Order: sequence, then structure tokens, then C-alpha cells
Amino acid sequence: MSSVSIPRIALTPGEPAGIGPELCIQLAQQPQPCELVAIADPELLKERAALLGLPLTIRTFAADKPASPTPAGSLSVLPVALAEPAICGRLNPANSAYVLETIRLAAQGCMDNTFAAMVTAPVHKGIINDAGIPFSGHTEFIATITGGTPVMMLATPGLRVALVTTHLPLSQVSAAITAEALTDVIRLLDQDLRLRFAITQPKILVCGLNPHAGENGHLGREEIDIIEPSLESLRCEGINLYGPLPADTLFTPKYLDTADAVLAMYHDQGLPVLKHKGFGQAVNITLGLPIVRTSVDHGTALELAGTGKASLGSLQFALQTALAMLPSTFNDLNPPPVSKTDTP
Amino acid sequence: MSSVSIPRIALTPGEPAGIGPELCIQLAQQPQPCELVAIADPELLKERAALLGLPLTIRTFAADKPASPTPAGSLSVLPVALAEPAICGRLNPANSAYVLETIRLAAQGCMDNTFAAMVTAPVHKGIINDAGIPFSGHTEFIATITGGTPVMMLATPGLRVALVTTHLPLSQVSAAITAEALTDVIRLLDQDLRLRFAITQPKILVCGLNPHAGENGHLGREEIDIIEPSLESLRCEGINLYGPLPADTLFTPKYLDTADAVLAMYHDQGLPVLKHKGFGQAVNITLGLPIVRTSVDHGTALELAGTGKASLGSLQFALQTALAMLPSTFNDLNPPPVSKTDTP
Repeated sequence: MSSVSIPRIALTPGEPAGIGPELCIQLAQQPQPCELVAIADPELLKERAALLGLPLTIRTFAADKPASPTPAGSLSVLPVALAEPAICGRLNPANSAYVLETIRLAAQGCMDNTFAAMVTAPVHKGIINDAGIPFSGHTEFIATITGGTPVMMLATPGLRVALVTTHLPLSQVSAAITAEALTDVIRLLDQDLRLRFAITQPKILVCGLNPHAGENGHLGREEIDIIEPSLESLRCEGINLYGPLPADTLFTPKYLDTADAVLAMYHDQGLPVLKHKGFGQAVNITLGLPIVRTSVDHGTALELAGTGKASLGSLQFALQTALAMLPSTFNDLNPPPVSKTDTP
Repeated sequence: MSSVSIPRIALTPGEPAGIGPELCIQLAQQPQPCELVAIADPELLKERAALLGLPLTIRTFAADKPASPTPAGSLSVLPVALAEPAICGRLNPANSAYVLETIRLAAQGCMDNTFAAMVTAPVHKGIINDAGIPFSGHTEFIATITGGTPVMMLATPGLRVALVTTHLPLSQVSAAITAEALTDVIRLLDQDLRLRFAITQPKILVCGLNPHAGENGHLGREEIDIIEPSLESLRCEGINLYGPLPADTLFTPKYLDTADAVLAMYHDQGLPVLKHKGFGQAVNITLGLPIVRTSVDHGTALELAGTGKASLGSLQFALQTALAMLPSTFNDLNPPPVSKTDTP
């Protein structure tokens, strides 16, 4: 008789003055097929639940006990103390180190197999930098703990869009489209579509950089000089690539219906259409890491914090996506060894 | 008793080896509320209709007779002779001058009020240049005849997207976003939304240039240095502008539901989402001209020419849009004076 393994998923509520904590509490109102382990200050969660009038039973996380599904209205919590009480909508640099510690514990716990995946609510980059902590981004911070080369992919039912460049001024994009960057990103994208999404031979559509994919060099030469030769080399490695295609016609059924993912050259080429299509049900997936990490596709929405009006859609979809990305171990095998996590 | 005025609409089938001629014939299968005047070689239209097995009665256009609605299966034709017979799918530089002459007659006819608007099927830029005729684009060619500063706007039910820059290599976009360019395009967009779309106080959403609209200067300074000051000046002129907003979140109901148009900074920032949303029902509208001109949103599709498989959707929507943009003269007043058009 085989036992079914219950995954433990680390959940970081992110910026305590934003909507992250209440989204985690809302998520906990539903019974889960996994053990959901919030890494947070339990007092913050209790206060925010009371503010929203939602029930919340907190169980202190014990790594040495067997994992069990989280019942409705309940959360396992790996406690990390806030430096100062969090006030809805009011950023406080005193709590920036707390935010980073919750993320560090989640990533470290994924690396040592305490957690099967991590799901993150939004952080506020500005306030972390204001606290004197150099911080270029959520994903980059996680990669310093896990290693790997992060590749950003957003997904919504029916569409996945990965990016070659991410948070870069538009004027620097062209210079960043190098054969090396394309090769690294495409290899990782292909590898993770196979590994994390169980797609046997992923079909990837690649956007051109320029309008009309350069129109045979009339509207820019990067397609001819860089993108086409790079794709051709990667095809020789057995990667199934189409393109470079004009981005304005690529996102239509003729192309999308048979594709597994689209690779956009830059942020605003690929994400407006994804967020338009996936409004309220889009997830940010970090590929290229040795762990499974998904995140919401939105920010801290400080103005909505404490109102209960923020939409749970993206966090819920982020959890569903993380669960779907887990290895089959969590379907029909015994759990992997669980080691004790760091606690503060 | 007031008489209802029947508008005459010039229809250019564009590249004769492409799908343009058969789309015009398909359009003519429906009865029209206007007089549809194809500017083309009548032999080409007859041959293509026979190839598709569609009925087509050709009436030679007479500018001095009163306009009358085009019945199903019929077309008025202002004849222009091809230099050589057109073969489906085979570009021929000998016919490039013909293509330009049909467009010139349409534009000139709009200027002298022979036509109330012009609707254009696609041309092939490469073959016109191959014929030794310097040609940077359909729209630019029309503007040399009509004057004005063309502003490209694409529309589909529920969304209009205008562009500050159009067919420019991505590496040149940042330098092209100047206060002067923004001011010109926004004034024309606002003016034509009032004039051609009868919107009393247009609400325009403006995209940032950089990801996250520059994130307070962390991801590029064009928003702070150029876009914000330009928008502020234009607001003082009474133009209702929102932004600069992050392009990836702007195309969601929260923003779009109350907007009349979106202004994107460049081609692949705005058009992927428009063509995704408007697949098969998108129109290219040229604002900033003294005439009404709409066009299909697709190319010549040489591989489909003669098969009858090309979708009529965009040309049909282009005609509907042109009719909707006409002044109220065509609803409840007498027709404007009609002068004789140039004939070849």
C-alpha cells in the first residue's frame, strides 16, 4: 500500500503594511490539499484576521511532525517577529529586515526539503532600500540563497509568457539581447517546461525585438544579426523554436493554439497581453532555480491594506500553480526527507 | 422633408497579387448603406470573382450622378489599368505604379469631396521599393497628398490604441519620445476623438515608456524628464490625460472600463494586446489627416491569395468604422458638393 505524500508549501506574506497578510488569511479560509506554512509574525496574522472578521487558528509549525493538509480557517506558522507593529498602508523601514528574513527562511527551507515550494506575496522594493539594505528585487534575493539563473515567466490559463530581459529601462533593452542571454534563457525555459510542467517537447514561440520582427532588416537588424542565428543553434540542440515572429500578430489563435510558451524580448512586449487575458488569474513563476517558486503578479496595494477588498485570485492561482509544478513524489510516493529549518 | 445623404466610400484593393482584391469582392457580396467605389482594374476584379465563384456586377463610377447604395453582388469601379495581369501570390514590380495610382486617386477624391472616406486593403512595401519607387509606407504616402500629420490608431470593439512612434527599430524609440512628439500626437488624438468619434471630453490613458512606467526613476528617467511634464502642460490645455501608467497593468478593466483611448509609446507595447483582443475585428485608423481613412490591420497574405480563405473581418470592420466616423451630414443633411474626380 503506497501512502500519499502531503507537500508543505512555504507562504510569505511579504510587506506587512500591504495586502499580503490579509490575502494569506483569505487563502487560509479554504481547506488545502497541502500544509500551508506561513512564515510571518503570528501576532500580525491574528490582528489582520480580527480586522477582517475572519476566523484564524494558528498552529506553530513543527518540521519534525508529519505534514498534514491545512483545514479551512487555519494556518501553520513558522514564527518570525516584526521589529515594530505593522500599520496598514504605512511603510516602515524598521520591518524591512523582517520581510527579508521570512523570504530567506522560505528559500532555505525549500533548499533543505523542509518545503516543497514557496509562494510569495508582494514586497515593497523601495522601503527595503530605504532601510539601507541593498535589494534589487524579490527574485534576485531568492537566487542569492538558492543559486541558479532566474527566468521570469508569467502564466494564466491558456498562455505562458517568459522574458529575456525584465526590469530594464527600454533604452537598454536592445544591447541586452545577446546570443548569450538568449541561449541561457531559452535553454532554461525549455528545460523547466519539461521538468516542472511535464511537457515532453515544448513548442516555444519567440518574439522579434523590433516591430514586425524587423521586417527583413528594414526596422532593425537584431533579428538577423543575433536572434535568428541563436535560434538556429538552439534548434540544433533539439529545442522546438518558432520565430522570431512579429509580436503584434503572435498573440492570436493561429499561433497560440499549438504553443506551450511565448518568449518575449522585454517586459512591456509580453506582459500587457498576458495581464489583459489573465486579469485576476495570473501568476509569476520563477524558472531557472533549483526550487519551485511562484508569486502573485501584483504589488503591495498599500491603499487597499486592511480593507479586505484586494482580490485573492492571483495568490490562489500562484498556490495552485506551485502544487501543479511539484514532482510526482507528491502524488504517489513517500515524502522526501525533511530536515529542520532555521528559526530566528 | 429632409433627404438622407448617401456617402461614397473609396475602396482600394491594394497589392493585386495579394488578398486585397478578393476581400473587396467578398465585401461587395453584402448590400451596403453607402456607394462603395473600388479604385482598381475592373478586369482584375472580374477574374478574381470568377476564380472564387462569386457574382460581381460592375458599374463604372460616375462622379456626376447622385450616389446610391451598392446592392449585394455589385461594385462601382473607378477604373485604373494594371500594367501586367496580376497573378495570385506572385509580386510584380511592373504593377507597383498601379497600386500607388489607386491610392492617390482615393486620397485626392477625399480631398475634393468626391469621396467621404477611403478604406484601404494592404499593399506590399517591398515590391514598391523594388520597382524603384521610394515608399516608406501606405499612410505616409497618403499624407503627402492630403497634408496633415498622421497618427496611427488601431481599434477593436472596446479598445482603441494610438501610438507615439510606429515603425521604428526598438533601439531608436527612447530618443524619439520627445516633448514635441508627445504634444503633437496627444493634441491630434484628442482633437480627432472629439471630431471623428463625437466624444465630448475624451479620457486618454498614457503608457509609460519603461517597465512599471520607470518606477520613480529606478527603471529609466523618460517618464520624469519628458512624459510627465508634457502631460502636465497638455492637461492645462484641457486634455483629459491619465498617466504615465505601467503598460502591463493598464490593459485591465480597472483602467480600460472608463477610458476612450490608450496612447502607447511604441508599436509592440500597444498592438499585441489590441490584436489579441480584437482578433479578426481590428481596424487601423489614420488620425491627424484632413480626411477619413481606415485600413485593414493585416498584410497582403500572398499565400492565401485566390483561395477565398482570407478573413473578411478586418476589412468589414474598417468600412463600418469609416462610416461611423463620417460627419453628421451623412445622417440627416443634404450631401456636400461633389466635384469631379481625377481619372487616369
